[in-house]
Amino acid sequence: MMKKLILGVIGAGRIGKLHTDNLLRMPNVHVKTIADPYIDKNWVESRQLTGTTNVDDIFSDKEIDAVIILSPSTYHAEQIIAAAKAGKHIFCEKPIALDPDLIREALSVVKQHGVKLQIGFNRRFDPDFMRLQEAVQTRKIGDLYLIKIASRDPAPPPAEYVKDSGGIFLDMTIHDFDMVRFLSGSEVEEVFATGAVLVDPDIGKAGDVDTAIVTLKLKNGALASIDNSRQAVYGYDQRIEVFGSKGSVAALNNTETRTIYTSPDGVISDRPLDFFLERYQRSYLAEIEAFIQTVVGDIDPSVDGNDGLSATLIGLAAKKSLELNQPVAVN
Amino acid sequence: MMKKLILGVIGAGRIGKLHTDNLLRMPNVHVKTIADPYIDKNWVESRQLTGTTNVDDIFSDKEIDAVIILSPSTYHAEQIIAAAKAGKHIFCEKPIALDPDLIREALSVVKQHGVKLQIGFNRRFDPDFMRLQEAVQTRKIGDLYLIKIASRDPAPPPAEYVKDSGGIFLDMTIHDFDMVRFLSGSEVEEVFATGAVLVDPDIGKAGDVDTAIVTLKLKNGALASIDNSRQAVYGYDQRIEVFGSKGSVAALNNTETRTIYTSPDGVISDRPLDFFLERYQRSYLAEIEAFIQTVVGDIDPSVDGNDGLSATLIGLAAKKSLELNQPVAVN
Amino acid sequence: MMKKLILGVIGAGRIGKLHTDNLLRMPNVHVKTIADPYIDKNWVESRQLTGTTNVDDIFSDKEIDAVIILSPSTYHAEQIIAAAKAGKHIFCEKPIALDPDLIREALSVVKQHGVKLQIGFNRRFDPDFMRLQEAVQTRKIGDLYLIKIASRDPAPPPAEYVKDSGGIFLDMTIHDFDMVRFLSGSEVEEVFATGAVLVDPDIGKAGDVDTAIVTLKLKNGALASIDNSRQAVYGYDQRIEVFGSKGSVAALNNTETRTIYTSPDGVISDRPLDFFLERYQRSYLAEIEAFIQTVVGDIDPSVDGNDGLSATLIGLAAKKSLELNQPVAVN
Amino acid sequence: MMKKLILGVIGAGRIGKLHTDNLLRMPNVHVKTIADPYIDKNWVESRQLTGTTNVDDIFSDKEIDAVIILSPSTYHAEQIIAAAKAGKHIFCEKPIALDPDLIREALSVVKQHGVKLQIGFNRRFDPDFMRLQEAVQTRKIGDLYLIKIASRDPAPPPAEYVKDSGGIFLDMTIHDFDMVRFLSGSEVEEVFATGAVLVDPDIGKAGDVDTAIVTLKLKNGALASIDNSRQAVYGYDQRIEVFGSKGSVAALNNTETRTIYTSPDGVISDRPLDFFLERYQRSYLAEIEAFIQTVVGDIDPSVDGNDGLSATLIGLAAKKSLELNQPVAVN
Repeated sequence: MMKKLILGVIGAGRIGKLHTDNLLRMPNVHVKTIADPYIDKNWVESRQLTGTTNVDDIFSDKEIDAVIILSPSTYHAEQIIAAAKAGKHIFCEKPIALDPDLIREALSVVKQHGVKLQIGFNRRFDPDFMRLQEAVQTRKIGDLYLIKIASRDPAPPPAEYVKDSGGIFLDMTIHDFDMVRFLSGSEVEEVFATGAVLVDPDIGKAGDVDTAIVTLKLKNGALASIDNSRQAVYGYDQRIEVFGSKGSVAALNNTETRTIYTSPDGVISDRPLDFFLERYQRSYLAEIEAFIQTVVGDIDPSVDGNDGLSATLIGLAAKKSLELNQPVAVN
Repeated sequence: MMKKLILGVIGAGRIGKLHTDNLLRMPNVHVKTIADPYIDKNWVESRQLTGTTNVDDIFSDKEIDAVIILSPSTYHAEQIIAAAKAGKHIFCEKPIALDPDLIREALSVVKQHGVKLQIGFNRRFDPDFMRLQEAVQTRKIGDLYLIKIASRDPAPPPAEYVKDSGGIFLDMTIHDFDMVRFLSGSEVEEVFATGAVLVDPDIGKAGDVDTAIVTLKLKNGALASIDNSRQAVYGYDQRIEVFGSKGSVAALNNTETRTIYTSPDGVISDRPLDFFLERYQRSYLAEIEAFIQTVVGDIDPSVDGNDGLSATLIGLAAKKSLELNQPVAVN
Repeated sequence: MMKKLILGVIGAGRIGKLHTDNLLRMPNVHVKTIADPYIDKNWVESRQLTGTTNVDDIFSDKEIDAVIILSPSTYHAEQIIAAAKAGKHIFCEKPIALDPDLIREALSVVKQHGVKLQIGFNRRFDPDFMRLQEAVQTRKIGDLYLIKIASRDPAPPPAEYVKDSGGIFLDMTIHDFDMVRFLSGSEVEEVFATGAVLVDPDIGKAGDVDTAIVTLKLKNGALASIDNSRQAVYGYDQRIEVFGSKGSVAALNNTETRTIYTSPDGVISDRPLDFFLERYQRSYLAEIEAFIQTVVGDIDPSVDGNDGLSATLIGLAAKKSLELNQPVAVN
Repeated sequence: MMKKLILGVIGAGRIGKLHTDNLLRMPNVHVKTIADPYIDKNWVESRQLTGTTNVDDIFSDKEIDAVIILSPSTYHAEQIIAAAKAGKHIFCEKPIALDPDLIREALSVVKQHGVKLQIGFNRRFDPDFMRLQEAVQTRKIGDLYLIKIASRDPAPPPAEYVKDSGGIFLDMTIHDFDMVRFLSGSEVEEVFATGAVLVDPDIGKAGDVDTAIVTLKLKNGALASIDNSRQAVYGYDQRIEVFGSKGSVAALNNTETRTIYTSPDGVISDRPLDFFLERYQRSYLAEIEAFIQTVVGDIDPSVDGNDGLSATLIGLAAKKSLELNQPVAVN
């Protein structure tokens, strides 16, 4: 029988539980320990897991091969560093950090200790978006002209959350920035960001915008446009189009069923899936499977630390662009 | 300058006005007289037409080249005969008559006097259904396996109307029977009709059904299925699918716009167009243009008297099948 | 910790493996033994299961609470009887048997021993079709007028298979007959079946048809129409519409992604999913979860032996109708 | 009988012929004269029109009530001025001129002589876009957050044409700028334009871009984004979305039919209509009907000279923004 990969999971919140449940269904994986300062004992017991409130129990456990970091963002960089120093492979939710220097330090430690690091840009593993990426890469759409992303949350977060989030571009748009890099296969050269406070004045008071349009010039010459809103009352709106010299491929919203109700009021089909847990259910599973495969098969992660750094740099440029009301180069 | 074709129109009801307005926009046509016992003088005047309550004014007018018969169905056969005897080409709304012998007599007079006769199966001129016919004829779908027709009216007619209509199969399904012949390019061999009174009990009392499923075996081996309802509360439901060895082509309902409203209640697109005047607007125009072309160009009509007879024979077989609860051969 | 339900699985073919893999992911279930005369030892080992070629090892095992019968159809009835006599709850793939008397005998033994029996009409657990059933039951569509089912396989089975299958109505349409009962909440009164050999002459030589249209009259007055084909070259075509006095709800085909490719040749979206394993992946999981819940919670199965019997009776009536070319009552 | 409105048409090119044919079908209109230096005599004769190569024949004709200016853009302003001085009402294709001072002069003459002036922003009369405007105005989508426009031509114009066109923003995007004003009911405050030469290097040599993204801040606080391409190989791509606090309404591309072809390669529906004559056929008719109504009913034109001026000012700001790579205020 195959040796199982032994894992420690850090963080047992919503995403922590989701990833853990996915891991528990994999035959070649053993989740040995799960750490969270506020660990939910009932949940841990229902899964027959070993819980701890002390994350160091994971770092110091020689048996653990790899860690899955799903803690709050502010801890990511230090936990990456601790895990790397302990010689463990790392899967870490985005973002690594808001400060590029801290990211660079973490990546340097990772490199030094020769461990693998995969960043949780799960949308890269979504079957719809993979189809778009393939259409660009195989030149099904010919030369890439435009990428258009509509990325809207169903409801705004509390203004309190917004304050510590790094702002909309580092908290929300960062996924879209990564998507532009993923789909285009190109780096971003320049960003122009416009924003407005239309949804919730408290978000404005917290120093952020809740509605934004970001225009990007890519190194390969193509253009990209992202629109964000903190509130799409009809659900989680996630649509992308790649347009080029031979045509366009667009990913529409996913829905719960494919039923249509034909009524005197019109033909009614399902609204978009509620939020990211529903919409990206398959991609959350696929990214963690890919990480296990990366470690087991000793291959390079498909989304690495540099991807994490690059998306943050674009986010910071967007933030600056909004402040200056000018296009800003991504260094 | 080209000589204009001089026309007499018989019947100035809803369809009469529609066709007349279409004719008035054609440069090579002159509508000389319009006959209707209850003629709407204001409307006639607004169109600068000459109206008459006596249809013989049209038959006896040597100048008139062709007549457009849009009177109630019960007058069709006798007016066809009168027009043919007067040497005029004829466009006649369906059905020619409910009695096959009367139809045969009318067709015989038409043949004897060498005039052209086109029957108003306007749906053959609908761009969507023409696309389906082409897909069968060019073998885009390979060998034809199945034709499926959903054909549902938005609201039931008064039971009074039903009584004189010849029943659902001769009044409503007759269009679908013609469509099966048109799409398949084949005659119908056998019919099995099932029906129910689900919409309006008065229709049952009038001796008819308001909901029906008709199964047809075609001479070329393919099968067809038609469902009818006298009431689709959401509009005029007109969908057809042709399915064969290489794929399927389906015509969906037409709508007023292509807008979609994404709301918390779902994604809402337009309901089907209201009724036949809206849905078949383009095909009404196209069929009358085709008739003018048939006369002017001295070519054979694309929908002739035999098409009128055949659809009626299928309708009569369906009626008998419903009565006997048995499949009935179409003679 | 909760006591686990101990299961024996009979049959380790395609469906056997599918259900077993689903069961292995459930926390409250232990698959103790899997029986198959041609058991795939590598697969059994990869799942850390105990395999046997002797099904009696399961019936005689006192520890086993319930059996999952996924063997060839011809063994279903006898295995149901053996399992019931051994006091085990039973999940059994459709059909119970082709002979109604044998079905009645099996159901009688089941009743006598007080065990639960769920039949594998998995489509009842499909989220799209559940939405349709709900629309009928909650009267969202008002009074039910029509049920329309298009149910087409991607490719014909070998003629050899057809010979022992009981014919298209007992092998393929049986799912659609169950769907009509499920959606309408009504029994079927009368069936008229028409068929043709259009796909593969060898199917005709084997005494069956490969293309069929079945019309059903329901006890509640509504009508239903099913079309079947053994070959839809574009995939597994599974569409249903329920139509009533307040509107229509239709389930369209499911697809792998929601992407659209806009090209000079048209706007191209995904074709239907390949076949039943892909299309009904979710419903296979849901039905077995429902069975576990039925046993654990000691509730009545939602799809019981009578449902299995009724679908077979409709299938036999359809078969007779095709032979006689007449409508046949379902007794 | 109602007095007919007597018209002179200036310009008998593609758009000239289209509008003239529409006018010829209107009962209350008489097209007396059509002027074009290169007039197509056969076409004039086929329509039984009076043609002239001298536009002054129209301005000096006392009988003519109104002129329809469909000449090349460079003549618009002077012909507006001449028509106004002759006391004739004016319908004029967009743009009035590229120079705002010239536009202002023309509008001043129009005002001075008290004639009506309607500008040919035909898209305002498109039923789909009218539905969007209504959704904003009636607050069906609540507060307006975003307007998103995809506006792409099927094939690039000759570089020669580009040189005199005023550039993509004044030639092509000007329609989209007007649409933003129409849909939002708000003026534009600031524009940021990005562009690239991706389709045809000759367009770049002519000093223009062929691919562009324009971001607009509106006076009412909402944001808008327009993407343009000179080449969408699949047809004329014209999609708009208005998104707000209560939902989103989007206009998808119009197509020739509503048929779908389900094939092994996918489900293929019609590509977008070819180009503006097909796509905006209905709106061309509706705008000219509205103009006739404006004159006959003595009401204010729904698209007036100021709308023409405003769109040009936004276009000029976009042009400057592209040059400076900075947002530019619309004065």
